[in-house]
Amino acid sequence: MAKPKRLCPDLVSEMTTVATPRVLFADTDKMGIVYHASYLRYLEMARVEFIRQTGSPYTELEALGFGLPVSELALHYHAPGEYDDRMTLRVALSLVSPVRVHFDYRVQVLAGDRRGLERDIDLLSAQTRHACVRARDGRPQPLPDQFYALLSSRVTSR
Amino acid sequence: MAKPKRLCPDLVSEMTTVATPRVLFADTDKMGIVYHASYLRYLEMARVEFIRQTGSPYTELEALGFGLPVSELALHYHAPGEYDDRMTLRVALSLVSPVRVHFDYRVQVLAGDRRGLERDIDLLSAQTRHACVRARDGRPQPLPDQFYALLSSRVTSR
Amino acid sequence: MAKPKRLCPDLVSEMTTVATPRVLFADTDKMGIVYHASYLRYLEMARVEFIRQTGSPYTELEALGFGLPVSELALHYHAPGEYDDRMTLRVALSLVSPVRVHFDYRVQVLAGDRRGLERDIDLLSAQTRHACVRARDGRPQPLPDQFYALLSSRVTSR
Amino acid sequence: MAKPKRLCPDLVSEMTTVATPRVLFADTDKMGIVYHASYLRYLEMARVEFIRQTGSPYTELEALGFGLPVSELALHYHAPGEYDDRMTLRVALSLVSPVRVHFDYRVQVLAGDRRGLERDIDLLSAQTRHACVRARDGRPQPLPDQFYALLSSRVTSR
Repeated sequence: MAKPKRLCPDLVSEMTTVATPRVLFADTDKMGIVYHASYLRYLEMARVEFIRQTGSPYTELEALGFGLPVSELALHYHAPGEYDDRMTLRVALSLVSPVRVHFDYRVQVLAGDRRGLERDIDLLSAQTRHACVRARDGRPQPLPDQFYALLSSRVTSR
Repeated sequence: MAKPKRLCPDLVSEMTTVATPRVLFADTDKMGIVYHASYLRYLEMARVEFIRQTGSPYTELEALGFGLPVSELALHYHAPGEYDDRMTLRVALSLVSPVRVHFDYRVQVLAGDRRGLERDIDLLSAQTRHACVRARDGRPQPLPDQFYALLSSRVTSR
Repeated sequence: MAKPKRLCPDLVSEMTTVATPRVLFADTDKMGIVYHASYLRYLEMARVEFIRQTGSPYTELEALGFGLPVSELALHYHAPGEYDDRMTLRVALSLVSPVRVHFDYRVQVLAGDRRGLERDIDLLSAQTRHACVRARDGRPQPLPDQFYALLSSRVTSR
Repeated sequence: MAKPKRLCPDLVSEMTTVATPRVLFADTDKMGIVYHASYLRYLEMARVEFIRQTGSPYTELEALGFGLPVSELALHYHAPGEYDDRMTLRVALSLVSPVRVHFDYRVQVLAGDRRGLERDIDLLSAQTRHACVRARDGRPQPLPDQFYALLSSRVTSR
């Protein structure tokens, strides 16, 4: 398993900030920091808000009988998240084909969003890969044209 | 919904031990103990194993088109659970009617199931109440006769 | 613990709306609705945002060496929550004593916050009860004066 | 991000089966299958039971003031898990150095452990990477000699 590639600074600057949720007790573990699995919920939040911003929410894709289940994911933890952090969720589409979609994520805490934090820090880099399927049987199925066009127009340039 | 009544010792002794799972990091929070919501997963585990022991697992009820969603729940926390505790999940059926089922629970750690623990302790008392519904639309529907008979035979005598 | 009393309409109108999170896939189960335990996370969110609005966030209480663990909770489910619902979290303080705090909650979906929903609906009523403790050993300890005063001023009038 | 390498059949046969938990409602989502993030809990269960089998449980490492937080993880989903599946959790140590530990996992459902399933299927391949740290400040710290020796003796031969 290779590590999720360090995104170059230019690429990070192209990411879209989609939400700034706060860390709850529910997210922490007995080490006093965010439990590693708790971030997956925030990646889902980031992804669904990104899709909503394209103009066609995920519920429309569902209404057409499609799904985008996760086929692979990779997370690289840089620094521990803390209770009550206001996290900044940033996301980019790095690949769209008729049957595959890849999202890249960066979870950050910006200066001022944790008591005493004076510079921005990265908590996590991640990538999730999704297959487009027919919801009723999980069979691969090309994205509806409308969604393919909308998503393609949002792929991060390189 | 009344407070989960302190079960009298006789009643506790009538409860069935259905599983002895260990507390994971995933269950803990930054206070170093089991997060209060983590127990609900263990109550589900207790309930489903209890039903399996009747001879008809919950999946059979589902296959007939029924569901038993939670309509009410009450939890009373007695002492904190700790990481790696081997918990003892005990459960009893306290009420069965054609359209309602009530489960009572006790979560304990027995002497020897936590390092240095010399006597049994109670972590939690709880009750969940369930409605029998038709799965496809959530409408109340009497339990299938077979399930009603099986469950009725397991109601805790008083 | 008594059943979460049906709040009279006047009392509901005194509740404070503290957040409007959206339901994620992570919150749902195979019945296609919000899993009953998923709401506990939202109750925590409601509670912590309510406390923040008093002017002293929960992190300040922690910094003073105190905690407010849940000692009892009761939930009453009225209608199923659905994926992508924008929920309205409402909360009130129903009791504050030097060593105890009770919160009442109502989770609603307002007309327009679910596709096709034409009138407000209640998903859940709940109450959580908390003990004030010294964090390092879990011993009961009266609330710091500043917090007691701030919270007392926010108790719902009856 | 490269995909977790397909373990060769020989390597899979060297994995240790450490637990056979059943899928709960809590693990599923509205697609009717296991939510992708639910597996992380099972990977933790696999890892901690594997360590216990070495003779020194994770709690002993903690008692010495150490931790093994996840620094990277990668998951590759092969087929959907279903409610009430009895999953087989298999795990191997693929690398141990004084400051790093890598675990490889395979989650399977064996023939007979799902109604009507006639051959073994793979649900998931995964790898987690861990750093050995001093618990009180998260600083990298070499594994205690005893643990290093125990773990090293369990690294999968190639």
